[in-house]
Amino acid sequence: MLFKNTVIIGVGAIGASFAHSVKRLGLTEKVYGYGRSEEALKKAKERGIIDDYGLNIETLCTDADLVILSSPVGTFIDIVKSFVGFLKKGAIVTDAGSVKGSLVYEIEQIMPDGIYFVGVHPMAGTEQSGIDAINTTLFEGANVIITPTKNTNTDALKSINELWTKIGAKIKILTPEEHDQIISSISHLPHIIAYALVNAVCDIGKDNLNYCSTGFLDTTRIAMGSPAMWRDIFFCNKKNILKHIEIFKKNLDEMAALLESDDSEGLLADLITAQKLRKDLYKGRIL
Amino acid sequence: MLFKNTVIIGVGAIGASFAHSVKRLGLTEKVYGYGRSEEALKKAKERGIIDDYGLNIETLCTDADLVILSSPVGTFIDIVKSFVGFLKKGAIVTDAGSVKGSLVYEIEQIMPDGIYFVGVHPMAGTEQSGIDAINTTLFEGANVIITPTKNTNTDALKSINELWTKIGAKIKILTPEEHDQIISSISHLPHIIAYALVNAVCDIGKDNLNYCSTGFLDTTRIAMGSPAMWRDIFFCNKKNILKHIEIFKKNLDEMAALLESDDSEGLLADLITAQKLRKDLYKGRIL
Repeated sequence: MLFKNTVIIGVGAIGASFAHSVKRLGLTEKVYGYGRSEEALKKAKERGIIDDYGLNIETLCTDADLVILSSPVGTFIDIVKSFVGFLKKGAIVTDAGSVKGSLVYEIEQIMPDGIYFVGVHPMAGTEQSGIDAINTTLFEGANVIITPTKNTNTDALKSINELWTKIGAKIKILTPEEHDQIISSISHLPHIIAYALVNAVCDIGKDNLNYCSTGFLDTTRIAMGSPAMWRDIFFCNKKNILKHIEIFKKNLDEMAALLESDDSEGLLADLITAQKLRKDLYKGRIL
Repeated sequence: MLFKNTVIIGVGAIGASFAHSVKRLGLTEKVYGYGRSEEALKKAKERGIIDDYGLNIETLCTDADLVILSSPVGTFIDIVKSFVGFLKKGAIVTDAGSVKGSLVYEIEQIMPDGIYFVGVHPMAGTEQSGIDAINTTLFEGANVIITPTKNTNTDALKSINELWTKIGAKIKILTPEEHDQIISSISHLPHIIAYALVNAVCDIGKDNLNYCSTGFLDTTRIAMGSPAMWRDIFFCNKKNILKHIEIFKKNLDEMAALLESDDSEGLLADLITAQKLRKDLYKGRIL
């Protein structure tokens, strides 16, 4: 037993999967849910995913040992402000957000003395959202990035590390800035590209979408992700994403220029580079 | 039995899968393979995918009733020129290429009297190439586009339609121009984007690729496709692709501008549009 009472803010796909894991593995005695939709919370309780829920975040957090934020990242600051004053000494606040950077420092600043924040990004998920998208083995073998800062409490960091290790995740430690730069390139950039690609095909001819096959479906699967969640992520990691969009456009423009100028060997060389890099991803990966 | 002797030019993933289907379904008496690599042809014969192969295209085609081009589209014209004079009257030449447009008219122009060309694009495939990527049920339920012109022989068209119907494909008839415009948007554009995205992440930081998860892997799966094959396709459908890259960039630029100017509602609206369009693709599709 790592924690007695755990409160999950946002019992969606990630929150519910996390609740299920910690209960099943006996890492917490009780799991409480908090969220905007009482209907979803009721469903989570009925299915035994959470022990109970509350609609008053203050009372719910009074006795919490661990609070995990798994609502859209844009809601974090306001939500933390609403409950942090009610936590008892020694409580740990953590999250499951896809953006770290300044958000981590902002949350740290509103933590009272004796309450600790540890930023976490479990790199697992689905384009589906809501409690029905629960996946009870979502985090087994998943890559989980923990982003401590110089202010992070060592014991709290150790507890969070142990929690995710016991859940079955592979842990990687990065600074919040490293995290955001890396994740912008391999997750946020592909997401904004996928959304833009769907809208582009609609502009070209909406009926064309009816001819799509597996290539298009795979390439744009992530465009089914929650718009509200991804809007928040894009704004929270705006600087990196805008920079990476430019680098992507430079690469696409280069290919278009080679095509335009009939530089067959040049275009082939670019495609070979990309194919090799992509194929190598099946081989050893850091995480 | 629709055809006595079938010759397959290019016994790769598509050619081998086609050979297997027509033999298994008894749609042809004999299947002969032709290609650049004798090793691959030998393997195909040993595995019973083809009955025999030849390294001399002229002799191989002398008695052919059906010749299917399943080598990269950039090779079509030269290959057709090399064997078309040796075909007997009534023979049908067809293809499995991803580009139609002017290519169809060029091939039609080099057909002697009494030899018929019917353009076909089976919309099935894999990012893997070569005979080992054979998929014996690749075309079952697959969408197959046939692109007749005003010059297409009606009987030849009927035979090709029957051939693919018996293989289990769903047939759609389009003009070569309609085909190229549609396929550029939903296949060629996503491919060039996927290649450019992989190279962009490498430019941002090659080690970032080690952190990629399912989102990136799915979005860039098609960047594992054969560079030579895709180089050919991009050049053959250059005009449409360049136009569609511009429309895509306009959509991406719009999202970047909304992000830059902190227009949260505007960006959310774009994401909602894309998500809805993409989700609807699970529902009814024309093909």
